[in-house]
Amino acid sequence: MERNFKLILCYDGTRYRGWQRQGNTSDTIQAKLEALLSRLLGRPVEVHGSGRTDAGVHAAGQAVSFRADTPKSCGELLSEIRQYLPEDIGALSLEEVPREFHARLSAREKTYVYRVWNSELPCVFERKYVYVFPRPLDLDAMASAAEALCGRHDFAAFSAGKKKGRAATRTLYSVEVLRSGAEVRITYTGDGFLYNMARIMTGTLLEIGAGDRRADDIGRILSSQTRAEAGFTAPAKGLCLTEVKY
Amino acid sequence: MERNFKLILCYDGTRYRGWQRQGNTSDTIQAKLEALLSRLLGRPVEVHGSGRTDAGVHAAGQAVSFRADTPKSCGELLSEIRQYLPEDIGALSLEEVPREFHARLSAREKTYVYRVWNSELPCVFERKYVYVFPRPLDLDAMASAAEALCGRHDFAAFSAGKKKGRAATRTLYSVEVLRSGAEVRITYTGDGFLYNMARIMTGTLLEIGAGDRRADDIGRILSSQTRAEAGFTAPAKGLCLTEVKY
Repeated sequence: MERNFKLILCYDGTRYRGWQRQGNTSDTIQAKLEALLSRLLGRPVEVHGSGRTDAGVHAAGQAVSFRADTPKSCGELLSEIRQYLPEDIGALSLEEVPREFHARLSAREKTYVYRVWNSELPCVFERKYVYVFPRPLDLDAMASAAEALCGRHDFAAFSAGKKKGRAATRTLYSVEVLRSGAEVRITYTGDGFLYNMARIMTGTLLEIGAGDRRADDIGRILSSQTRAEAGFTAPAKGLCLTEVKY
Repeated sequence: MERNFKLILCYDGTRYRGWQRQGNTSDTIQAKLEALLSRLLGRPVEVHGSGRTDAGVHAAGQAVSFRADTPKSCGELLSEIRQYLPEDIGALSLEEVPREFHARLSAREKTYVYRVWNSELPCVFERKYVYVFPRPLDLDAMASAAEALCGRHDFAAFSAGKKKGRAATRTLYSVEVLRSGAEVRITYTGDGFLYNMARIMTGTLLEIGAGDRRADDIGRILSSQTRAEAGFTAPAKGLCLTEVKY
């Protein structure tokens, strides 16, 4: 009988072309995982992630679901998966879930963290996980703009995709801007994110923090529904999908 | 007039053959730094590190001294150095020091931290800076052995070098073994370290923690002056030179 599984993954996205399988290439997380599971389970396995992460984006808690007809316990299967995953992908947990669970369709809430290295000091050890932006940042202005992003809006202006109106409407529950030493972390929690949305919000917040735009610009950008009105797309390497809630 | 400088470096040692220049190869930290300084200062510059770090060992606070006849201020020179260093080497600070200062000869105390990932859980993001050792560890036994390592001893048994007796005598001021979540950190502070000493002490402490040896074995190992009596050499990647005091 087919069982349904939920797997929580972490990965360093540096050398991957993102989450989603693309043709026959094996340089996406999904392709790596499907190849491994198909080998371990002896037949083709299709996995569903909670959402795509872009090329170069990391995950500390990507949720994945897949079905398989196997007598193996979750513990056995988890240690086999751990044994064969490459060193830049890790399996945090595996559990059996009800038949109707689907990592993308059942997701209620996601959290992304964007890490900005805001200093002239070198950042050697974490260099693959932060974006270096040394200009002085006004965190109060950023927090005020972050507040204006929260709520239910059409986020078309903050997306590289083509959706508009209802299809581009998402709810951001919170956006936190916190400094810890040389690092500024922006934490986004919402019911869903459009293509490049976290990165474009980050670029816009950084322009506001650096004084290139005003914090009260956000309302106008949102209502424009126009990508060009928002800020730059912050690099993928600073972004990490940290949690998916169901 | 020749001025004397003290530079504090951090580096990810992963892709280097250690600190020390070796012939004409450019894959050591010293060679990289000397090539850069010679270019910036227009004449050959020789640098002295506080000590060698092995191939693959990291540094969060390696101290370096060099002499140069330059009109540049420390601030100017530091930003030039930062601009041209590769992304896995960073310059934390640069200051002018008295003529008699020498990074190796003047060093009074060094601190090394060894990071052990003591869990079945994956360690994806920090994987280049930790040694994965998932067997259960008895931290009390390790702390008791660590205590026995402290003090002034002939550490020949804990060295891959050939020095014995007075030449192998060093003082360890403290060895701390601390768990933080899945990670166990061993922090060594002493007046100097022999070749591979921190790594062999770590391997020995891990064997004691895993129950393969007894904590009260340390005295016997020390007095044997024999490398084979101590434990394995823990991998370079887990080790980091964090501070040098003068």
